Amino acid sequence: MKLSQLLQNAPANLPILQATFGLERESLRINTQHRVAQTPHPSAFGSRNYHPYIQTDYSEPQIELITPIAQSTEEARRFLGAITDVAQRSLEHDEYLWPLSMPPYITADDIQIAALEDPVEYRYRQGLAERYGKLLQSMSGIHYNMELGKDLTAQLFSLSGYSDKLAFKNDLYLKIAQNFLYYRWFLTYLYGATPIAEKGFLEKDLTRPVRSLRNSSYGYVNHEDIHVSFASLENYISDLEGYVQSGQLSAEKEFYSAVRLRGSKFVRDYLENGIQYMEFRSFDLNPFDHLAISQETIDTVHLFILSLIWMEDLDNVDEKLSWATDLNEAIALAHPLDPLPDQAPIQDILTAMTAVIDQFQLGDYYLSLLEKVKAALANPELTLGGQLFAQIDQLSLEVFGRNQGAAFHQHAWTAPYALKGYESMELSTQMLLIDIIQKGVHFEILDENDQFLKLWHGNHVEYVKNGNMTSKDNYVVPLAMANKTVTKKILDQAGFPVPAGSEFATKEEALNYYRLVADKAIVVKPKSTNFGLGISIFQEPASLADYEKAIDIAFAEDSDVLVEEFIPGTEYRFFVLDGKCEAVLLRVAANVVGDGRQTIRELVAEKNKNPLRGRDHRSPLEIINLGDIELLMLEQQGYTADTILPTGVKADLRGNSNISTGGDSIDMTEQMDPSYKQLAADMASAIGAWVCGVDLIIPDRHLISTKEVPNCTCIELNFNPSMYMHTYCHEGPGQIVTRKILDKLFPEV
Amino acid sequence: MKLSQLLQNAPANLPILQATFGLERESLRINTQHRVAQTPHPSAFGSRNYHPYIQTDYSEPQIELITPIAQSTEEARRFLGAITDVAQRSLEHDEYLWPLSMPPYITADDIQIAALEDPVEYRYRQGLAERYGKLLQSMSGIHYNMELGKDLTAQLFSLSGYSDKLAFKNDLYLKIAQNFLYYRWFLTYLYGATPIAEKGFLEKDLTRPVRSLRNSSYGYVNHEDIHVSFASLENYISDLEGYVQSGQLSAEKEFYSAVRLRGSKFVRDYLENGIQYMEFRSFDLNPFDHLAISQETIDTVHLFILSLIWMEDLDNVDEKLSWATDLNEAIALAHPLDPLPDQAPIQDILTAMTAVIDQFQLGDYYLSLLEKVKAALANPELTLGGQLFAQIDQLSLEVFGRNQGAAFHQHAWTAPYALKGYESMELSTQMLLIDIIQKGVHFEILDENDQFLKLWHGNHVEYVKNGNMTSKDNYVVPLAMANKTVTKKILDQAGFPVPAGSEFATKEEALNYYRLVADKAIVVKPKSTNFGLGISIFQEPASLADYEKAIDIAFAEDSDVLVEEFIPGTEYRFFVLDGKCEAVLLRVAANVVGDGRQTIRELVAEKNKNPLRGRDHRSPLEIINLGDIELLMLEQQGYTADTILPTGVKADLRGNSNISTGGDSIDMTEQMDPSYKQLAADMASAIGAWVCGVDLIIPDRHLISTKEVPNCTCIELNFNPSMYMHTYCHEGPGQIVTRKILDKLFPEV
Repeated sequence: MKLSQLLQNAPANLPILQATFGLERESLRINTQHRVAQTPHPSAFGSRNYHPYIQTDYSEPQIELITPIAQSTEEARRFLGAITDVAQRSLEHDEYLWPLSMPPYITADDIQIAALEDPVEYRYRQGLAERYGKLLQSMSGIHYNMELGKDLTAQLFSLSGYSDKLAFKNDLYLKIAQNFLYYRWFLTYLYGATPIAEKGFLEKDLTRPVRSLRNSSYGYVNHEDIHVSFASLENYISDLEGYVQSGQLSAEKEFYSAVRLRGSKFVRDYLENGIQYMEFRSFDLNPFDHLAISQETIDTVHLFILSLIWMEDLDNVDEKLSWATDLNEAIALAHPLDPLPDQAPIQDILTAMTAVIDQFQLGDYYLSLLEKVKAALANPELTLGGQLFAQIDQLSLEVFGRNQGAAFHQHAWTAPYALKGYESMELSTQMLLIDIIQKGVHFEILDENDQFLKLWHGNHVEYVKNGNMTSKDNYVVPLAMANKTVTKKILDQAGFPVPAGSEFATKEEALNYYRLVADKAIVVKPKSTNFGLGISIFQEPASLADYEKAIDIAFAEDSDVLVEEFIPGTEYRFFVLDGKCEAVLLRVAANVVGDGRQTIRELVAEKNKNPLRGRDHRSPLEIINLGDIELLMLEQQGYTADTILPTGVKADLRGNSNISTGGDSIDMTEQMDPSYKQLAADMASAIGAWVCGVDLIIPDRHLISTKEVPNCTCIELNFNPSMYMHTYCHEGPGQIVTRKILDKLFPEV
Repeated sequence: MKLSQLLQNAPANLPILQATFGLERESLRINTQHRVAQTPHPSAFGSRNYHPYIQTDYSEPQIELITPIAQSTEEARRFLGAITDVAQRSLEHDEYLWPLSMPPYITADDIQIAALEDPVEYRYRQGLAERYGKLLQSMSGIHYNMELGKDLTAQLFSLSGYSDKLAFKNDLYLKIAQNFLYYRWFLTYLYGATPIAEKGFLEKDLTRPVRSLRNSSYGYVNHEDIHVSFASLENYISDLEGYVQSGQLSAEKEFYSAVRLRGSKFVRDYLENGIQYMEFRSFDLNPFDHLAISQETIDTVHLFILSLIWMEDLDNVDEKLSWATDLNEAIALAHPLDPLPDQAPIQDILTAMTAVIDQFQLGDYYLSLLEKVKAALANPELTLGGQLFAQIDQLSLEVFGRNQGAAFHQHAWTAPYALKGYESMELSTQMLLIDIIQKGVHFEILDENDQFLKLWHGNHVEYVKNGNMTSKDNYVVPLAMANKTVTKKILDQAGFPVPAGSEFATKEEALNYYRLVADKAIVVKPKSTNFGLGISIFQEPASLADYEKAIDIAFAEDSDVLVEEFIPGTEYRFFVLDGKCEAVLLRVAANVVGDGRQTIRELVAEKNKNPLRGRDHRSPLEIINLGDIELLMLEQQGYTADTILPTGVKADLRGNSNISTGGDSIDMTEQMDPSYKQLAADMASAIGAWVCGVDLIIPDRHLISTKEVPNCTCIELNFNPSMYMHTYCHEGPGQIVTRKILDKLFPEV
């Protein structure tokens, strides 16, 4: 079967969209003077020797953002968003990423070759500077990588009649490459976005804007005498190897085609190992999109590539591609508002795209993409070049570039505690992912709902769940911490202060115990408490009748009931990691403090404006409600929501200090006496915990704690302690703890 | 305040019953010839160098069972029950424990001194043999240890007016010791149970039975010239030290009083460190009770000891104790049916016991104990000695001893998978506890409902939950195994066979996936399945409509749904521990096989007679029900419960193979090809699991599995795999796995 008949003969339920994707986006770092940054690649990004996501390309200020392999276009763009987000936030505070493919005003002296450690890589770049000039190397683009899915490839192979799967895949990918080159002018027309060069960039300045300098002969192309045949894989290989042997190319990778065959270091290996995937390199940065490429573009290109399979197999390949190169050059150098020339075989493309959508019932979304393509074909103003043309001021885009760059930078810094695209995950996991991407540890989200990550560096693999459940803790320790009775027994046997008390499975036992606590302040509670349900506190000794009532209430919530000594004092959370207390937090019940002017309602509204406050645990602090519970709480203090609170007077809106009900988090790490931090760390060590949230009740933190006189009591150990709340606090500097988890998991990074 | 006024002035809610208890029970090992065993201490008990629970006392065949410290009398007896159970089951199969304090017919040559490794201990026993004779040493008894509770002691101390807590406790315990010796005849009367000695034991045989040889001067007492004063602690110490210095005693511990002060190695240390607890040594074995002491006895003695505190402080101590010794001798050597002599001050005791019950409102149970005491005082036939008298045949108790010994031995062997007294715990934990007690690892049950154990040997502590959740697994591995998607990804990435498939959070995604499985046999299931709810299996490719229905059904059970390749074959469970497959199990749905004679109902009833079958997971196999599900299942096969099934024909009663619904467990460890065991072990290693239940579907187990052609598929890894089901099987020898867990946790034991 001819390859062009493959899709025509495929069933409607062929998994046509199955593919993996990868995006690479280059961008220049720009300083406050809006010139190319002269600073080195930020140290926050760790080592370029292995960073999988954030690299430098040709020059020191040209960052390259590389997504891992994604299973869908949405995932690829989400990866790109996350990496972009982290990169933007990791720059020196006065730098930002340039949103345009063409640099701002620049001279060759501004450009430092990337200071890579590998001397071969450095020399290669020096050679490029000599052959092409440094300025040319400062253009940025997006490379779009794609591999057809395994099931899709397998089904196409079985339809094809080929007997050799490798030969089939090579032929198929070569066909895609040929047709891509033949029809690339289509993408140049739609997405060309390099209409001008700033003064001095070109030897002779343009006199009017064009569609895509970068996709024209002004762009990053090989010398004219390089002609690599795409007629067959054998020709392609022998041509490339010939140029390298003759020294006309310093390496195979110096061949700058708009499409590249990928998967092996040397092209000859494709004969034996097969082409693994394709790299399409012709995309200018879209300066209207903060990620430089829109979801619609990615999907339209995907559909376009599938259409290339549908279309006729090319004959007279080299001749036709030569013609196509000329056509692309004309369209690239046309005015952004010029229509397509008549000889552009646009109907081939539209027919194929329509056929693919129909044949495989791709539905409304792809139909709408096709409609937009048609509209842009009819009206150049709708193309990216057309839209960008409106932003050109005196043959310069500098002002537009600065504004867009600033806007995207600001966008990256909104909700800095979150990782864009991953907001459905827990905050602590989002914060850990930020650190992972920044440091350059490989990651895969094995289960998003379950907050389950796989991390690796070289052969070293670590799994992480919920941000700090790792291989560093042994299994039985968190199980011990999950059980209040067991925790207390272990701490008590190790000589640490815990509330005296006992656990009961029957009311009778609990009542028998009364004689031991008849004269004491006590807490009666279900063994497993949820939201404080079923808890009775007796700050004065309870009568037997009241005690019995409390026992009944607690048994209504759980089959086991604890009776414990009541411990007065203030509760602090100590975050302990690997034997060291890294953060101390005080949680204060939701409240407002008066200014003598505003009502409580207004004070609440003002407090809620804090961008750290949000809903559903997706922000470090929660919005304070004014619901029934809060109004009742106010009433008990003699207030209503409309009370104007005197200056400095605090009104509590909740009886509990949970952050989740609008409480304030106060970072006390620096203020807390070291003796308590050491005690908390010792408690975690006593139970054997690597990571542990230690809740201490401290009556007076100005007293020093000793082993003999601890001056505090431990009421709980938490085996998966929240991390984000220590970092973004209502008050205090905040402590970065997720990064410490990562450093401990991968000390070699 | 005088000590005798203490309780009188204490409030009713004084925690009077708070105390800790420990029991030590000696017993001779007896062989099938009903003579003292000549075999060495069973090697199953591990090393006597450190075994905390099972030791030898004087002679090699005299086992000593020692409970850990218990928080209540019930717990103490439960400990004793467990240790007795394990000891009985660990004997060579032809040996049993002698239920009487007095040995069966015996000669001095029958008695081998315990082959202890410590030469000092061995020489000490040689010395005893010389001084007292070997025969005397073969009497067995129970020692009852008790310490008053911490809160009780603290409250009594604060009532006492003492300024020194240590002095208070010493005085209090000395008072108890004095009164115990003064009133010990009371216990001799009630619980004396050594009425005769078998022929040849005494120099001159008795002519009639007595109450308690062992508590008389015939018993294990010091030479007549040893007189240690109990008048004060100082006197006690200086007397004892004097006898040791003069060589009349080889060591302080050779002083055989009915009561001992305990807590230090040398009595002089009590002055500085205080008496910690008391040891009461006068109890003959109760041969009517399989643990040799009944719960009522333990509690009555507890009440008696508390009454000793209530009673007058003794004056003229040594004189009175000398009188009391004579009284005790008379009562011990009286006929078992003789009433108490008039001079016995019985009213003192009854008054004090009544007063303690009244003062502290101890309630019906203690009142009933008191009533029984009164009845026995009025009627000697109700005493232990009185009851035992009826069993004497020609001044011998050998036949009675044999019968009781056999009955208790058989009792220990009923339900050998369970640990008596701990039946509410999971079977696997019970089986592990059996191993722990047998091997002599210290244990504490930190939380019984939660199956949470603390184990230790020397300074080495291990926590164990649910039998195999330990420090040996790292935390994130079981979390990975708990997540089917994560497990599959990890196994798949490591190159192991798992069902192809995908996970979906929305119906739309799941429907889009249809094109990938339209021509395949599939399973649609909720991500977290319970009891197989929501699972649809399509052994033939599903229509889109049926697929959609299955998706809806699965989403009704969970927010995430899996669609997986259907794997035909037989499912086996591989139990992997520390890189090695230790057991393989086949589970078969509940069924009966016909004999051409019985109805299915009868066959089920017969099958249910297997003592391994019980209810609620407290037995290795479950009772097969004949409920609606089973009857429907029969109907589908064309049967009713009254069908007489032809010989060899199998009727299934369930569609699922769970043991919990009456399924059969078949041990396939020996039959399974080693290649599959290795594969299962490799899978566990790939995910990093120390303990793991690997579920493999194997179409044909006679084919060999290789990495390239595994011939099987892994459908699940289990992080807390059941252990008991591998040990006690419906078919096959069964594999002991809990013991292997223990050996790995404590390789040094």
